[in-house]
Amino acid sequence: MATKYKLVIVRHGESEFTLKSLFCGFGNDADLSETGAKEATHAAELIKQEGIEFDVAYTSVLKRAIKTLYLIQEVLDCHWLPVFKSWRLNERHHGALQGLSKSEMAEKYGEDKVKLWRRSYHVRPDPLDKTNERYCFNAKPYAHMDQSMIPDCESLKDTVERLLPYWYDEIAPAIKCGKRVLIVAHGNSCRSLVKFLENISDDDVINVEVPQGIPLIYELGEDLRPVKHYYLGSEEELAAGKAKQINQGKPNFKGY
Amino acid sequence: MATKYKLVIVRHGESEFTLKSLFCGFGNDADLSETGAKEATHAAELIKQEGIEFDVAYTSVLKRAIKTLYLIQEVLDCHWLPVFKSWRLNERHHGALQGLSKSEMAEKYGEDKVKLWRRSYHVRPDPLDKTNERYCFNAKPYAHMDQSMIPDCESLKDTVERLLPYWYDEIAPAIKCGKRVLIVAHGNSCRSLVKFLENISDDDVINVEVPQGIPLIYELGEDLRPVKHYYLGSEEELAAGKAKQINQGKPNFKGY
Repeated sequence: MATKYKLVIVRHGESEFTLKSLFCGFGNDADLSETGAKEATHAAELIKQEGIEFDVAYTSVLKRAIKTLYLIQEVLDCHWLPVFKSWRLNERHHGALQGLSKSEMAEKYGEDKVKLWRRSYHVRPDPLDKTNERYCFNAKPYAHMDQSMIPDCESLKDTVERLLPYWYDEIAPAIKCGKRVLIVAHGNSCRSLVKFLENISDDDVINVEVPQGIPLIYELGEDLRPVKHYYLGSEEELAAGKAKQINQGKPNFKGY
Repeated sequence: MATKYKLVIVRHGESEFTLKSLFCGFGNDADLSETGAKEATHAAELIKQEGIEFDVAYTSVLKRAIKTLYLIQEVLDCHWLPVFKSWRLNERHHGALQGLSKSEMAEKYGEDKVKLWRRSYHVRPDPLDKTNERYCFNAKPYAHMDQSMIPDCESLKDTVERLLPYWYDEIAPAIKCGKRVLIVAHGNSCRSLVKFLENISDDDVINVEVPQGIPLIYELGEDLRPVKHYYLGSEEELAAGKAKQINQGKPNFKGY
């Protein structure tokens, strides 16, 4: 099928939680680290070099994604861009792991189990008790929601399922209208989108890794299915970005 | 009538055009100056001290307003806040004066005429030819609009008339739904709102001056008419802010 639309997906830059090698997620409204801000600006420069422009942007209600988007808007000089923020694009809720050290987890449970928790499709980590201080640092964006809708742990499958209504109801219609769409999201919401768009199997999705701050371009056909996809930036940047994410689950990981 | 709603209006901080003492306006997408960024942060601190929170924010498509709002969101830690941007909240279009020096204008035409052009209700400055390089630096936010809708000069009356549909269709319904609304706008779009809300006469509106970066609070009744209004911040700040705006039209004005 011929390319009809172009969709750009950017995973937010490194957060202060990632910097400390902690499991972040849905409920942690961690800020961007200094490196994360530079990654966001670099992502924008790659987009600018490519001459890509946008008509609308979608992001989560978490500040590391919103700030990444704002920094992209700064470089592209498009502060005026309509921006829509939804909890449905949030990071996966890592349950009881949220706010804990990734390397400690790996030491305690082993690298394979941590990888399974982080990357398998159906497995949920233990829920995080809603009275736990690590549960949710900023409840305000969810004040209008029934509390039962706010997850206390999610499998990747759960993340896909709560993300897709936003794709179908908001993002896909905008693309179909000819709007040039930018999505700035998180490791697992990006992975969820990639799984859906490319129809990746539940088993294979564990190996999908969208690196932070390297724009992922999808050329879509009339049916909104990918004709092809590629990353902006050099091979070396892409390899380094992927290695950075994968190292986070290892026991000797000490942060960057 | 008893207070039912609270509306907060903030005029953006000083722009790089104001710093150079140039007529800015609708078509100039000038950045915030360093002082302007500090004014925005200070406005946010005053709002924070007062314990005011928001559910939604409205601003223009001009970056000096959008950046002021973003800096307020930084201080209030509410990046997640839904933000809607409309050209209807833009600064007035100053026509042929756009991009020219305010003090040169005052020297050439006299302080009274500059004041009349800047502050009278019905008088339009000469239009700015759409082929003039000073016409519009960033046409992208208006790409969806019929070109005839984009002004080449505006009286304050014109500004009020193109702003009010946005008040009636978007902002007023949000307030009526109980949403706590923040508006970040420009000298003349703030003045237009104040004129409308307080039902100020066409003659008296010339003396209305909303200072930059000092939050203006309206307590509104069930009918969305003001029960009372006041500024946050000290008397001294308010007096200094008003003096700063008024001095801009004087012939010996050299910028700040």
